[in-house]
Amino acid sequence: MNPQFETMKVSIFEEMSLAAARHGAVNLGQGFPDFGWPEPLLEDAARLVRKGSNQYPPSRGLPVLREALAAFYAERQGLAFKPEQFVVTSGATEAIAAVLLAALEPGDGAIVIAPAYDAYAPLIRRSGGQVQEVVLRPPSWRIDRALLETAATPSTRLLVVNNPHNPTGRLLDGQELGTLVDFAREHDLLILSDEVWEEVLAPGVRFTSLASLAPERTVKVGSAGKIFSLTGWKVGWAAATAGLADIIARAHQYLTFATPPHLQAAVAAGLGHPEWLDPPRHGFARARQRLADGLQEAGYVLLPSEGTYFQCVDLPASGISLDDRHFATMAVEQAGVAVIPLSPFTEGEPERGLIRLCFAKSDATIDAGIAAMAMAR
Amino acid sequence: MNPQFETMKVSIFEEMSLAAARHGAVNLGQGFPDFGWPEPLLEDAARLVRKGSNQYPPSRGLPVLREALAAFYAERQGLAFKPEQFVVTSGATEAIAAVLLAALEPGDGAIVIAPAYDAYAPLIRRSGGQVQEVVLRPPSWRIDRALLETAATPSTRLLVVNNPHNPTGRLLDGQELGTLVDFAREHDLLILSDEVWEEVLAPGVRFTSLASLAPERTVKVGSAGKIFSLTGWKVGWAAATAGLADIIARAHQYLTFATPPHLQAAVAAGLGHPEWLDPPRHGFARARQRLADGLQEAGYVLLPSEGTYFQCVDLPASGISLDDRHFATMAVEQAGVAVIPLSPFTEGEPERGLIRLCFAKSDATIDAGIAAMAMAR
Ligand SMILES: CSCCC(=O)C(=O)O
Ligand SMILES: CSCCC(=O)C(=O)O
Repeated sequence: MNPQFETMKVSIFEEMSLAAARHGAVNLGQGFPDFGWPEPLLEDAARLVRKGSNQYPPSRGLPVLREALAAFYAERQGLAFKPEQFVVTSGATEAIAAVLLAALEPGDGAIVIAPAYDAYAPLIRRSGGQVQEVVLRPPSWRIDRALLETAATPSTRLLVVNNPHNPTGRLLDGQELGTLVDFAREHDLLILSDEVWEEVLAPGVRFTSLASLAPERTVKVGSAGKIFSLTGWKVGWAAATAGLADIIARAHQYLTFATPPHLQAAVAAGLGHPEWLDPPRHGFARARQRLADGLQEAGYVLLPSEGTYFQCVDLPASGISLDDRHFATMAVEQAGVAVIPLSPFTEGEPERGLIRLCFAKSDATIDAGIAAMAMAR
Repeated sequence: MNPQFETMKVSIFEEMSLAAARHGAVNLGQGFPDFGWPEPLLEDAARLVRKGSNQYPPSRGLPVLREALAAFYAERQGLAFKPEQFVVTSGATEAIAAVLLAALEPGDGAIVIAPAYDAYAPLIRRSGGQVQEVVLRPPSWRIDRALLETAATPSTRLLVVNNPHNPTGRLLDGQELGTLVDFAREHDLLILSDEVWEEVLAPGVRFTSLASLAPERTVKVGSAGKIFSLTGWKVGWAAATAGLADIIARAHQYLTFATPPHLQAAVAAGLGHPEWLDPPRHGFARARQRLADGLQEAGYVLLPSEGTYFQCVDLPASGISLDDRHFATMAVEQAGVAVIPLSPFTEGEPERGLIRLCFAKSDATIDAGIAAMAMAR
């Protein structure tokens, strides 16, 4: 058995979702919404699964989806991707796996900026790479050049960026993006830019893709599950230079080969209607406010959140002395709400006083979550 | 870039399917059926995608599907799997990737019995393993112990078996299965048993799972796409001892995390109706006969086929001097039919006179394929 997987635990998302189910708790842990999907996508998928092809699509994705992706990103983010630069995958997780397996050789260093989504490090290691962790600190979580330089070695080949950032909900500003691009260019690094939250933004916030700043070295990862609030659909993609996309496609063909065609075609149709994203955006803004207000009323101190559907809470500042893991265990078992502790997202010296809550929920669920959080203190 | 993927070509299936599309040829290459799926599965999937959950299911699969799998295999193959021994994956390809990434450590040897499905060797290598190839020879393609022993080394940890076998269409007999089990036990090997074709059998043929003979060391891989003739659905699974399943689940959670719930639930419903597989079985038997008759009438000499929806042709015995790759190129470009050459399935010294045709097609497609094959000689 591979020792890495033999000793690994289930992901913190799975752990908390299972605990929520076991204890009948409100689940504000794992990031999935209970509203926000455009109904026409469901109708389309239903029609296509009955009347369209249910056989292997091309491994790299349906042409109609790759064309829709190119048009969507040109319109929304000014990106100049051609359809052949996309590799459609079975969710963004598969895209990340394919990129890391395609890019890394044994011994290659890969910089991960912590707190970091929990899939990066295990996939880097399983690809033979060395995780070189940069640890950011709250409340600013700012990236600066000196921090990046301390992590880099001559074997560093890749830089993983996640923007908008999970679990903090932060957006990188123009200066930080510039720093990342300069740093990557000087060290000649590939940038794996996980931008799955690109369409999940607080009101007034504007997102800039690293693919617009460093197209020559950025692999952009996106997710229909996040864009359309359909996390179970598992339709994702990687976009890169044509040459890189070819190599990623080789890895992808042996990971899942292809992705269900009815879901691909429905996503393609959805990308042609960005106006369908407006009602969910307003809904999430309301929900964001509702959770923040309720938590603050219950005495919790919040960190800023500009993107993702996550809100972080500062436990010590809220007068709570339990560390994040103990608070999360107590909250799900005794107070009836599942939240995500932040310490599992850092390997080195994690902050131990922060938890993350998902607000992409109905009013009733949010209110129940707030009530449970009020009980938890 | 990882050198393995940098120099790799697209799979022979993708290559021939793209060529078929480009030349407007009949596609008897890549294995996908154009009939045979139970309509109720499509209705179920359509209903569920509209009315059920489209959010993350549990990473290891919906309980209802894991229960249906346990019941299905108990009934059809006398297997004693419990629901928790299954890990649902985004297609059998992902199951194979998860098993190899979970099982192999750098330097581990993995025996592959060639001709072999094209995903095994790249995934073994990318997992850090060494491919130890055993090459079988036509027309018998028989596995014998001496052959296995020549490939084994002290570092061998895993044995990949594919039964029913793609691309030959052969079923292993009881003696060969016994040989494999004895060999695996004596060398203490894990068996990755790719049994995706278990329900695609010629009339009167009976299938025995290696999981019934060596449950302590067999990881059985299955595919709803193959069982229900819905290759685009990408719902697969691995079944193993509970301890092994836990480790495979860790790899799976970072490859795709989960598989669309509406497809999982529809597959679960389908597994409860094995009688839905009878009409396709009869249809495939007719199609098998139709293609075989037509090819023989056109002067082709066939190899036996008992499982899968593939029929192999012996080119030299049919009086054709082109090797398999040249014949396939000529056939798709000039005669208008895509077929799969067998030499890409062996790394060492492949046979160069065999091609594979898929017969899971409508009468009209088969007849067009036969006409094109008649032109190709
Ligand atoms: C694939 S489970 C993780 C879902 C998610 O993005 C999150 O909760 O952070
Ligand atoms: C995933 S493409 C290969 C399909 C198949 O099983 C075959 O044609 O052999």
